[in-house]
Amino acid sequence: MTDASAETLEEQVLGAVEHRREIVNAAIDEDLPIDEPERLYEAVRYLLDAGGKRLRPTVLLLVAEALADVDANPGDVDYRDFPDVNGEDVDVMAAAVSIEVIQSFTLIHDDIMDDDDLRRGVPAVHREYDTGTAILAGDTLYSKAFEILIEGDAPADRVVESVDVLATTCTNICEGQARDIAFEGRDDVLPEEYLQMIEHKTAVLYGAAATIPAILLGADDETIEQLYQYGIDVGRAFQIQDDVLDLTVPSEKLGKQRGSDLVEGKQTIITLHAREQGVDVDGLVGTDDVDAVTEAEIEAAVGRLEEAGSIDYAKEKAQELVETGKNRLEVLPDNESKELLEGIADYLIERGY
Amino acid sequence: MTDASAETLEEQVLGAVEHRREIVNAAIDEDLPIDEPERLYEAVRYLLDAGGKRLRPTVLLLVAEALADVDANPGDVDYRDFPDVNGEDVDVMAAAVSIEVIQSFTLIHDDIMDDDDLRRGVPAVHREYDTGTAILAGDTLYSKAFEILIEGDAPADRVVESVDVLATTCTNICEGQARDIAFEGRDDVLPEEYLQMIEHKTAVLYGAAATIPAILLGADDETIEQLYQYGIDVGRAFQIQDDVLDLTVPSEKLGKQRGSDLVEGKQTIITLHAREQGVDVDGLVGTDDVDAVTEAEIEAAVGRLEEAGSIDYAKEKAQELVETGKNRLEVLPDNESKELLEGIADYLIERGY
Repeated sequence: MTDASAETLEEQVLGAVEHRREIVNAAIDEDLPIDEPERLYEAVRYLLDAGGKRLRPTVLLLVAEALADVDANPGDVDYRDFPDVNGEDVDVMAAAVSIEVIQSFTLIHDDIMDDDDLRRGVPAVHREYDTGTAILAGDTLYSKAFEILIEGDAPADRVVESVDVLATTCTNICEGQARDIAFEGRDDVLPEEYLQMIEHKTAVLYGAAATIPAILLGADDETIEQLYQYGIDVGRAFQIQDDVLDLTVPSEKLGKQRGSDLVEGKQTIITLHAREQGVDVDGLVGTDDVDAVTEAEIEAAVGRLEEAGSIDYAKEKAQELVETGKNRLEVLPDNESKELLEGIADYLIERGY
Repeated sequence: MTDASAETLEEQVLGAVEHRREIVNAAIDEDLPIDEPERLYEAVRYLLDAGGKRLRPTVLLLVAEALADVDANPGDVDYRDFPDVNGEDVDVMAAAVSIEVIQSFTLIHDDIMDDDDLRRGVPAVHREYDTGTAILAGDTLYSKAFEILIEGDAPADRVVESVDVLATTCTNICEGQARDIAFEGRDDVLPEEYLQMIEHKTAVLYGAAATIPAILLGADDETIEQLYQYGIDVGRAFQIQDDVLDLTVPSEKLGKQRGSDLVEGKQTIITLHAREQGVDVDGLVGTDDVDAVTEAEIEAAVGRLEEAGSIDYAKEKAQELVETGKNRLEVLPDNESKELLEGIADYLIERGY
């Protein structure tokens, strides 16, 4: 690895993510231009343009690089004409954009359902525009993701398999979101139920990001399967870390009210653990209105969860999942991109926001 | 045609639609069962189970029959193992279900955006459940449609082309809905803009229904294109007739408030024509609240539109489109299914509700 001595792995990971983010952003401009009707497409692009680390597309591109065993200097790689197992060109960037587009659609619709006002530090789409436009922007992103995915020029049987993965992923995300909402009214959610929920709500999109490049490039079935499971493992870890960050990161840095999950009564592995330890989770915060809660209330609630060991418990669970996920990468040749995929897994649970 | 002497064409068309509707309903049960989480899937199935003539899937099945030149007695046809141009089996029923599933998704989301209370004589999904569940039910139907379409076992290149048509169709529907909403705030909509809007909002799904079976069965490009245009023509005629029916059919029969388009300020070819004739369209009804309007107000408004010749003008436009659409069917062999496709085109503008 060039300059490996001078950089920590975390710095290398952040640099790799940053570099690929810019390339992905340029590709989003190409594959999802502001079209007519303009107001719709502005709403379609609004959240995508508000920020985001492009972690899922970066995972997708890194898997492609690792499989092709190319030098992972992104400036040298043409993701639009990327060599598959037979040396034929495949546009893996289209697939990367497609994954980010699906992510954006789910955030827009989730924010309507959860009535969240802020996302990425700016008003949610249904606040900046209106609910109807936000529904429609999400619906447009949804179909655009399929249009973009199939433009990737891979052999037709691989495209069909990728479409199947993407469609099943979307169905799972809906099922996970439905469970997440249903859990809010329950105080008897089992840990297995919670893990299944976050697998569907969050992890499957990481699974799709990791497995679709393998499918498009013609990898063998075992590789396709292990990469999917890598995505599931790190995706679950990512969601658990998100639950931790919601409680531990200041609101300004989080881009939304700290502790909002707790206020809204969302079940997380933290609240499940705390309840098992006898903590009165529902009584931790005296309001279910995110706008009415005080920092002091959140601070006290987080203190109780820390005392119960629930936040440490979540961190350990995330750590275990990351280790399992990294082991799945044995199917890949040893190269810098593989190291970065291991590094991203670590980064997902070490990130501060 | 069996018993041709005893039945009018309209009776034959209605019989053919009715017969295929039942087969399509059975296929919906197979391809979209009530899964876990149950409340989500009940919402997913709610509108599908509330009724609907299954016109689009019927068009799809009739095109398949016409192309294969099979005896159009549906009891004798196995749509799950349907012969393509090479005699290989393709599941065209999966595609038919897929089209109806997309139709259902768009109705559920449209009803939220338009804040409509009733659909098919029952509460809209966001009224029977809640807005979040309705958004999620629509999103689930969306991905299920793609999952179901690609299960059809056709050669991969044809599946990819079908997915492309379906995804583009969904994008167009969103664009059409966005225009429809934007038009509500304008009094200078041009007839061409209106026709483009209904092409996207409504006609493209008929286009997809007519062209996807041709793609899946391996028809030539000219046939694929003409069938698409048949769908566009009859789909536009269908929307114009819908606009006419909204004004002329009693609320009980319509399953929602008569004249609701007028109350909500929706632009239709009828209001565009009336405005050209100097009618003060915005002043026709004194409220924009569907619950507050009286039958007498609607009656008077419809009277003014009739005097201006606007309703007759719309009927003529629809008739022209149906004739053009029927001429597109010259690419099909002469058989009973082709006659039924002509008959359906006529039926779409002759139907009373």
